[in-house]
Amino acid sequence: MAAHVIVLAAGEGKRMKSDLPKVAHPVLGKPLLGWVIDATSDLDPASITVVVGHGADQVREILPEATNTALQAERLGTGHATQIGLDAAEGISGDDVVVVLYGDTPLLTPGLIAELANLSEDETGRLISADVEDPTGYGRVIRAEGGSVGGIVEHRDCTPEQLKINEMNAGLYAIRANHLIESLENVTNDNVQGEYYLTDVVGLLVAEGHKLSAIKTTPEEVMGINSQDQLAEARRELQRRINTELMRSGVAILDPDRTYIDESVSVAPGATIYPGTHLEGSTSVAAGARIGPDVFAVDTSIGADSTVWYAVLRGAEIGAGCEVGPYASLRPGTVLEAGSKIGTFVETKNTTMAEDSKANHLAYLGDAIVGARTNVGAGVVTVNYDGVDKSKTEIGEDAFIGSDTMLVAPIKIGDRATTGAGSVITKDVDDDALAVERSGQKEIPGYSSRRAARKAAKDAKD
Amino acid sequence: MAAHVIVLAAGEGKRMKSDLPKVAHPVLGKPLLGWVIDATSDLDPASITVVVGHGADQVREILPEATNTALQAERLGTGHATQIGLDAAEGISGDDVVVVLYGDTPLLTPGLIAELANLSEDETGRLISADVEDPTGYGRVIRAEGGSVGGIVEHRDCTPEQLKINEMNAGLYAIRANHLIESLENVTNDNVQGEYYLTDVVGLLVAEGHKLSAIKTTPEEVMGINSQDQLAEARRELQRRINTELMRSGVAILDPDRTYIDESVSVAPGATIYPGTHLEGSTSVAAGARIGPDVFAVDTSIGADSTVWYAVLRGAEIGAGCEVGPYASLRPGTVLEAGSKIGTFVETKNTTMAEDSKANHLAYLGDAIVGARTNVGAGVVTVNYDGVDKSKTEIGEDAFIGSDTMLVAPIKIGDRATTGAGSVITKDVDDDALAVERSGQKEIPGYSSRRAARKAAKDAKD
Amino acid sequence: MAAHVIVLAAGEGKRMKSDLPKVAHPVLGKPLLGWVIDATSDLDPASITVVVGHGADQVREILPEATNTALQAERLGTGHATQIGLDAAEGISGDDVVVVLYGDTPLLTPGLIAELANLSEDETGRLISADVEDPTGYGRVIRAEGGSVGGIVEHRDCTPEQLKINEMNAGLYAIRANHLIESLENVTNDNVQGEYYLTDVVGLLVAEGHKLSAIKTTPEEVMGINSQDQLAEARRELQRRINTELMRSGVAILDPDRTYIDESVSVAPGATIYPGTHLEGSTSVAAGARIGPDVFAVDTSIGADSTVWYAVLRGAEIGAGCEVGPYASLRPGTVLEAGSKIGTFVETKNTTMAEDSKANHLAYLGDAIVGARTNVGAGVVTVNYDGVDKSKTEIGEDAFIGSDTMLVAPIKIGDRATTGAGSVITKDVDDDALAVERSGQKEIPGYSSRRAARKAAKDAKD
Repeated sequence: MAAHVIVLAAGEGKRMKSDLPKVAHPVLGKPLLGWVIDATSDLDPASITVVVGHGADQVREILPEATNTALQAERLGTGHATQIGLDAAEGISGDDVVVVLYGDTPLLTPGLIAELANLSEDETGRLISADVEDPTGYGRVIRAEGGSVGGIVEHRDCTPEQLKINEMNAGLYAIRANHLIESLENVTNDNVQGEYYLTDVVGLLVAEGHKLSAIKTTPEEVMGINSQDQLAEARRELQRRINTELMRSGVAILDPDRTYIDESVSVAPGATIYPGTHLEGSTSVAAGARIGPDVFAVDTSIGADSTVWYAVLRGAEIGAGCEVGPYASLRPGTVLEAGSKIGTFVETKNTTMAEDSKANHLAYLGDAIVGARTNVGAGVVTVNYDGVDKSKTEIGEDAFIGSDTMLVAPIKIGDRATTGAGSVITKDVDDDALAVERSGQKEIPGYSSRRAARKAAKDAKD
Repeated sequence: MAAHVIVLAAGEGKRMKSDLPKVAHPVLGKPLLGWVIDATSDLDPASITVVVGHGADQVREILPEATNTALQAERLGTGHATQIGLDAAEGISGDDVVVVLYGDTPLLTPGLIAELANLSEDETGRLISADVEDPTGYGRVIRAEGGSVGGIVEHRDCTPEQLKINEMNAGLYAIRANHLIESLENVTNDNVQGEYYLTDVVGLLVAEGHKLSAIKTTPEEVMGINSQDQLAEARRELQRRINTELMRSGVAILDPDRTYIDESVSVAPGATIYPGTHLEGSTSVAAGARIGPDVFAVDTSIGADSTVWYAVLRGAEIGAGCEVGPYASLRPGTVLEAGSKIGTFVETKNTTMAEDSKANHLAYLGDAIVGARTNVGAGVVTVNYDGVDKSKTEIGEDAFIGSDTMLVAPIKIGDRATTGAGSVITKDVDDDALAVERSGQKEIPGYSSRRAARKAAKDAKD
Repeated sequence: MAAHVIVLAAGEGKRMKSDLPKVAHPVLGKPLLGWVIDATSDLDPASITVVVGHGADQVREILPEATNTALQAERLGTGHATQIGLDAAEGISGDDVVVVLYGDTPLLTPGLIAELANLSEDETGRLISADVEDPTGYGRVIRAEGGSVGGIVEHRDCTPEQLKINEMNAGLYAIRANHLIESLENVTNDNVQGEYYLTDVVGLLVAEGHKLSAIKTTPEEVMGINSQDQLAEARRELQRRINTELMRSGVAILDPDRTYIDESVSVAPGATIYPGTHLEGSTSVAAGARIGPDVFAVDTSIGADSTVWYAVLRGAEIGAGCEVGPYASLRPGTVLEAGSKIGTFVETKNTTMAEDSKANHLAYLGDAIVGARTNVGAGVVTVNYDGVDKSKTEIGEDAFIGSDTMLVAPIKIGDRATTGAGSVITKDVDDDALAVERSGQKEIPGYSSRRAARKAAKDAKD
């Protein structure tokens, strides 16, 4: 008995005020729809079919490869959408279980979905319900003798007695394929909206004597996202889950409420994360590393026992025992080999810092290779762009680049070479040599009296 | 039947440990008293009179223009203060409604105040109450038959039975003017404190057979602020309201608990705000803009689809499609025209960046105009201050300012002009010209042996 | 009647995934064990004995001087550990009270521990209990007639009726010394684990007719820390307590949930702390200072009315009325005298800024003394390291260091001296003199056509 999943994801989500279709909105690096699909992992479904509609192309782009899609061109209700999904799904046998989910409920957990589909022999279907404090507007789950589902009554159709029921129908179902297919044929659009409602299947099945059960969960787990504040609420809960799991694995997170880690990121036990840290994409952090406060890292690997704080890292590779920050920006193509250091007010791009090399202050290193143990002084700039071309700077090992040296690329600085402070270096420098570009210091005595006179004149005028 | 508001705001607030009078403490850009006055907006009162005392001048300064003030020179109780407010208020007719509020309750909502004043024909007054878990110390609301107010009993005067009541009197009233005025005349200061209590009016009116009702709200909404921790609590709640409203309008706020937006700020639907962002004063953010993480912006406009992160902006105008940061400081008078870019470790002041111009790294631009499409290199400084005067730098269009160029103002750089890296430019540069200030590069071979020898000597000594 | 404290602290804490013994993990600058010891302050114990085991040396290092330790070489249970502690403790008399605590419960408060030990004459001991929602796994407190402790029943031994009890035993005891010593002799290791349980003492004493009481507290207060997520939870609560106390004393903390202050830090009433601020070690903040957002300060003093924002401060002394940031790094040995200013993208180390001196932008000042009222321009670097030695820079009063000046140390710049923009200064400069190192500006007309030609050629090729 296989399980098939149909995810209804045709909605626009106008209240999101966004060009993206609602289910394509990312949360912690994964679209809402991705969270729903991943929640079917324990179920291991034979097929997943996503019914798309608004922004169909954008939704198709974010889907995993093995996912079918079906297009709901007209919005004729959830029953209609389910029918379209069934038509597109492949390999459904009569006693298979069809699980119908929504693409905007990212807080579903794999355990719940597996339980939903785990029909016992005497059950035709299951649905998910939740007790809510204020059920106004929701369909109520009516329990029959013995606790099975006796029906779903929409809020507007409730008797005064039924209005007191606070168990609401979440609209998520697992139903045996043959019965779902038959029932859908009997669902009509004879209602105010003129739509075909999937919910009507429950009534039809119960009326035919089928047994359906309701599995209760929290209202949070089945929350659908329709607005930015709900999206923020979902993000908070998903982040809480990720951070709790990391902490339980041995990662020290000092303030988990203020630490933002995508699901795609890996952090090794023994790493420490300070508040205000954002880790995104394929970022990885090794054991013993200390990250933050206030670090933003995307697609960046950080080696063991490295310290990174107050820094922005994009597409960088940081080896073991490195130091970065405070106030550093590492752009794509930056490679820090073991023990190297990028200090304060230093920016790098497409640059390799070899082992134990350092750029401690106020430097821009672009398209450069800095040799092992080389020291790059404060104010150094690799002049890699002349308005037309980008060129490379190569610096040897054990070199010493004096403060405020301009390295006009393309240029090579030899091993153990030195450049004098304030020099503009335009020609290659040999191994072991000192290169200086500088004129003589001149002194004009008594200059301060001129400045004082001007200052006095100005003050008199003011 | 008009409504008149009297706000009692004479207190010092010693526990705040601040030179400011308590009600003048700002929360999200607006003083406590301002929040209270704004909470009367649905009521649309005929007059608002603020009774000031401690720090009267400081309080008057923060008041809207149309607000009367009355001075309570001596602190003789809330009844006394209300009397002073009534004396100062203009145009009160006998059957008008007088609403008495406190200046330190910023969480009041317009809906509650409107309801407070909305007396039915048979009511002489209304008061606000709240159920609290632990009512110790509070006056209890005694309900008469039918639910109207039977009286207020102070904690110390409660019978054992009354001590069990957990409905506390918030001290906020709406009472018909003629009855309030009469009753206040009968209030005495025959109590331990020797003060005239406004609360006594309730007992007097009930004793005369008047009907008063109590409107229940949450204890939070009527919370008075007396200490910095209560101020922080109020700030959190007011920020929550502002952020929720923004999110519901379509602004994406990734972590609303870590996003600080003044009420005076406007953020368009479709903008995205990352955590750690502070938006203050007259700041505005257009649709499609991405702000944060860790941005501080005051009195700054940010155009559509611009990206600003890790930056401090004060009094800046940022056009559409601009990029700012990470690590940039834009000071007052900065204007970024469409498509321009201020990158990493760049500070600007009183500077215009024309369309598509760029200063990507490590630069200080003060009192400058940078022409369209001009590129400002790393390490460039506009030398705008000589110790006496500030002078202007004008750079033309399509120019290329080489790295580490010092532009000694006043100076003009022509269109399409270039400056060589490391040059100190003191004279104007013509259109299309290259200007360089540089001496020749000299090389001393084998210099590294000197450094090595010194190093060896030092190591031997250590 | 004296009180003696035994703290059981032998555990490894494998789930922490850390090389540190569990009780040595720091929270807000103090190890877990330190929090427990400090919680005995109201008790003023005659002796404190810590039973160490795993990582004994590391634990001994973090202990206050007056603390005894005893080594539990084998892990034979809490009864065994208590026995070892008793053997090592000095000066215990028969009717003294022995308080047994655990080293991993940092949320204990002094009031609770004092109450625990405050045995009345008829009591032989007291224990701490807490009502928990789900007591699964915990030992239950059985109450005898009159409310005294009738025994402790472990979860696995509970009757169905006892399983319904949700008062759990926290395992923290105060017992008269003679009775504790006697009872421990009768405790056996006749159980599945083969361990001696301290809990068994309760049963033995009760069986002998002794009266023991249970003091109820919250489950939070007695929470033991076994994993990083529990550590984060404890940190949040301890931080909440510190911040609340600071706010009640008159410190304005704008977002106490996002403000990180060690217990060792002092902040004066009237100071204001913005979100994202970390204050650690011996840091002190004077009245009127405004710190944050996003400041990290360790072992730093900040004077009255100073403003520090977006800055990292380590071992710095900041006088009154100073300004630091945004984006500044002050490293150890930095002294800012009154009214001085370190602006944007400025780093200092071992540097004194005298009164009213300024370094507003893009500078590195290391091993320097900057005289009063001196202005350090943008791009200035003290060239304090030549690859071998660090040397000093001394700048006089009222001097003016032009933008991008390299000060090649060792060097002295006189009072009222000026340096020209872009100069490399290698020789001392006299008082009042202007020193310049610069060659003449040359201009090549029409250079832009070359660049345009190259650009056109490149574009054609692409």
